[in-house]
Amino acid sequence: MFHRMVVVGVGLVGGSLALAARRRGLAKEIIGYGRGEKNLRLAQSKGIIDRYFSHEEKIPKGADLLILATPVQATVSLAASFLPSLEPGCLISDVGSVKARIVQEMERLLPSHIPFVGAHPIAGSEQWGAQAAVPDLFSGRRCILTPTRNTDADALKKMMGFWRQVGAKVEVMDANLHDRILGVVSHLPHVLAYALVNTLSQTDVDSVDLKNYCSGGFKDFTRIASSRPEIWRDICLVNRRAIGRSLGHYIKRLELLRRWIRDGEGDLLEREFAQANEVRRQIS
Amino acid sequence: MFHRMVVVGVGLVGGSLALAARRRGLAKEIIGYGRGEKNLRLAQSKGIIDRYFSHEEKIPKGADLLILATPVQATVSLAASFLPSLEPGCLISDVGSVKARIVQEMERLLPSHIPFVGAHPIAGSEQWGAQAAVPDLFSGRRCILTPTRNTDADALKKMMGFWRQVGAKVEVMDANLHDRILGVVSHLPHVLAYALVNTLSQTDVDSVDLKNYCSGGFKDFTRIASSRPEIWRDICLVNRRAIGRSLGHYIKRLELLRRWIRDGEGDLLEREFAQANEVRRQIS
Repeated sequence: MFHRMVVVGVGLVGGSLALAARRRGLAKEIIGYGRGEKNLRLAQSKGIIDRYFSHEEKIPKGADLLILATPVQATVSLAASFLPSLEPGCLISDVGSVKARIVQEMERLLPSHIPFVGAHPIAGSEQWGAQAAVPDLFSGRRCILTPTRNTDADALKKMMGFWRQVGAKVEVMDANLHDRILGVVSHLPHVLAYALVNTLSQTDVDSVDLKNYCSGGFKDFTRIASSRPEIWRDICLVNRRAIGRSLGHYIKRLELLRRWIRDGEGDLLEREFAQANEVRRQIS
Repeated sequence: MFHRMVVVGVGLVGGSLALAARRRGLAKEIIGYGRGEKNLRLAQSKGIIDRYFSHEEKIPKGADLLILATPVQATVSLAASFLPSLEPGCLISDVGSVKARIVQEMERLLPSHIPFVGAHPIAGSEQWGAQAAVPDLFSGRRCILTPTRNTDADALKKMMGFWRQVGAKVEVMDANLHDRILGVVSHLPHVLAYALVNTLSQTDVDSVDLKNYCSGGFKDFTRIASSRPEIWRDICLVNRRAIGRSLGHYIKRLELLRRWIRDGEGDLLEREFAQANEVRRQIS
């Protein structure tokens, strides 16, 4: 399908995509790029990539697919630095958790002979780096593509096929809508989990080490607080409006619960919890 | 160890304790009590209890251990209704997630010939009822006992042995301290999970069904929102002060994060997330 696929950022998502593409024969050669040579060597030794390079200007000739899999603030600037060396027709795509700004800036940046398709596979975990990459990360998971009216139709078709081949359920969606949805279902919970862990560590209860008393509920709740700080810093900055809004809604809800708890409103609390029960049941 | 153990509330915790006690030979006969006869029949058919009764006044003669394993608001009033039929020396204990008020009210209620030891095994899951009971629920888990200076020393010793026998790591702690610790590490996350699910269901993003976009992070985060509403209503009411306080701290932290996100404070956000990373690592 592709001759030379370049993966920028061979981490959990980039590395898994390389493995999945290789397994499905979607690229003849897969080449890695990244800041950390140790991670790139690991990726090569694990067979995730065939080889790697580490200076933007040295992108190999003949690359026809460039996947940007870095923290979202780096996406566009990296594309800009690769651009002078790219050959016409090289398709660029990404895997970022925020889409509107990336899509807009990529369209502003790229000439018409370098097509771009924004993509976000809703898959991942709190693990990082090439050592976390697995070939079936995208199996049965949603991958949202966010073309605009300017998006090259052939490029879109190619990327839809590509994601389907690696097992994803492809969905096409407006980039702004994507960001508003993800702001609630994914970005908000990450912020909440980080905040809970820090609230715990900054609460003093008679100098007891509270970490010793955390059980399954706390651990599940905060698993995502092990996610990579840089990635989530960038997501918060780039999708700040949607995250700010959902954080505002959430704080309001907590204020309400705090009042109900203070005032001993048992019926209201029970109703609140029962509603959550029912909705949560529909999610799993 | 005990001749006739009565378990009031044969649910996840009460039922598991019955199974564990039976397996370790800690009670010759185990008798269930509860409001739902269907659950009691299930418990009997699964061998969790030998038999059951369903009117307080009909508590079997010769009960020497009464375990109260109901939502915490029911604990003391149930003890009061059993009291006239209890024989001197019958030991009462509980498994409630809140201790100070229960311990205080039980001491006020009970005569000196009916000893009480407050207990809270930090074990559980979001599942309910006798069908969720398992004999090893307490293996390796902490069980906090909260005696006061009035607590009968023999009764305390017996309950420490009992919990050790079912595999728990016993810890003795002041009831108020217990409630403040659990208010942060357990009660707060439950309230937050319920609130997140309800925030999701009350957020309208172009009429999209947001539930379809929830992935692993959201699901882990909100697993505890499947916990039984009655139980958590009671915990919120009985431990309202500690929960209110930790909810207040948490809301403040979220307000801070909201400002940082709004103002694009990347460095502060990254530091916040990296700190949480480090603390979370120490928990698992």
